[in-house]
Amino acid sequence: MRIEAYFTVGEVDPAALTDATVVVIDVVRSTTTIVEALANGARGIYPAVSTEEAVKLAQSLGRDDTLLCGERKGQKVEGFDLGNSPGDFTAEVVAGKRLVMSTTNGTRAFGLGHESARVLACAFTNLSAVAGAVEGVEDLVVLCAGREGRFSMGDALCAGHLISRVVADSGEEHSLNDAAMAARALASRKPSKRFLSGTIGGKALIEIGLEADLEICAEVDRHDFVAEMVDQAITRSGA
Amino acid sequence: MRIEAYFTVGEVDPAALTDATVVVIDVVRSTTTIVEALANGARGIYPAVSTEEAVKLAQSLGRDDTLLCGERKGQKVEGFDLGNSPGDFTAEVVAGKRLVMSTTNGTRAFGLGHESARVLACAFTNLSAVAGAVEGVEDLVVLCAGREGRFSMGDALCAGHLISRVVADSGEEHSLNDAAMAARALASRKPSKRFLSGTIGGKALIEIGLEADLEICAEVDRHDFVAEMVDQAITRSGA
Repeated sequence: MRIEAYFTVGEVDPAALTDATVVVIDVVRSTTTIVEALANGARGIYPAVSTEEAVKLAQSLGRDDTLLCGERKGQKVEGFDLGNSPGDFTAEVVAGKRLVMSTTNGTRAFGLGHESARVLACAFTNLSAVAGAVEGVEDLVVLCAGREGRFSMGDALCAGHLISRVVADSGEEHSLNDAAMAARALASRKPSKRFLSGTIGGKALIEIGLEADLEICAEVDRHDFVAEMVDQAITRSGA
Repeated sequence: MRIEAYFTVGEVDPAALTDATVVVIDVVRSTTTIVEALANGARGIYPAVSTEEAVKLAQSLGRDDTLLCGERKGQKVEGFDLGNSPGDFTAEVVAGKRLVMSTTNGTRAFGLGHESARVLACAFTNLSAVAGAVEGVEDLVVLCAGREGRFSMGDALCAGHLISRVVADSGEEHSLNDAAMAARALASRKPSKRFLSGTIGGKALIEIGLEADLEICAEVDRHDFVAEMVDQAITRSGA
């Protein structure tokens, strides 16, 4: 099994994604929010790179059962229905809805997997489900969204825990790239709200009063399903 | 003390370099080679981004006492005097010479520090000297050259050992960015030829028959001086 990790989207070799199983990680907060929304009955999440693209896409999907979601500098985009706080994506708000979502870091990564075998969304909240889903694949690419184009400790820690499980669960030989080796080494640290609070992404959330979001972001296996991007939308895999 | 690390040159915020003490790391192999050359009496190393720029610069410096050095895909550039194997930079070859050097990964990083307080070259081979030199600075930026724009384990490990020493040696509070935290966590690993052999950079060298280079690259404190870029050239600091 070939396991490659990338700590930033800018480092990705597009050729490495072809026919690979790609796992996108943006712990603080977009993949955590995506998993939360799907757990609470959202029909699908449509990533959009820009807020303009998000508005257009929502219009084409039909504005009645579509919610506009996303943040810039951590805060809800003006005029949007929801920001990027996982706790706001309750069943009451999102059940049966399509969500168009544009975030600073997470959205771009989902656009890279056109030629991939599968593209999955991973957070601490669905870690074991994703680890189970990628078992036995030949090529695994773990793609951290990063923070404003830079290394993000929360994403790297989640990548490390995922890679550690995948390596531990299988008896075969693995070929890891340097970032996958490093991520695996980081996994001696346990995720926690406290840990995330010390990262740049966590500090930025605390500064704008959204510290509570980190509680959900750090909760391992809060849910037990895989979120998968098929065509334009991320849905519960097999659902 | 503010300590920021960057695992790739592409992630650097140029504003973070202004007035900071910048430490450039390219363990396999350019900063190792630079330190080796200076230890063996080279007068100065002139980084050049392209091979064309290297040739022009060598001509302007005076071709008689200037050596052209550098690699592409690990191999010596055709027509150049030296490649990038630290062991080739013996006193016999480099003493009293100026070296113009162009390498795939290392050279670009040295061009970013125009507005910095100091720009130092660090490898495992001069780790303690650099750790001593940066003691007490207010802003430290550890800039890993990376490998072809991507995360390099050898550089990250060296960054981690440097940051660990700096943090351990001083009693004050530190503010670390995410990459500096991660690098520090990696420093539980010890550098060795065997360790570097498992990294992408090490494997690539082994493939082209240059495994012996890794022996020097992994040797902690082989030398006891700081290499510093001033104007165009890297020289022994204080020499």
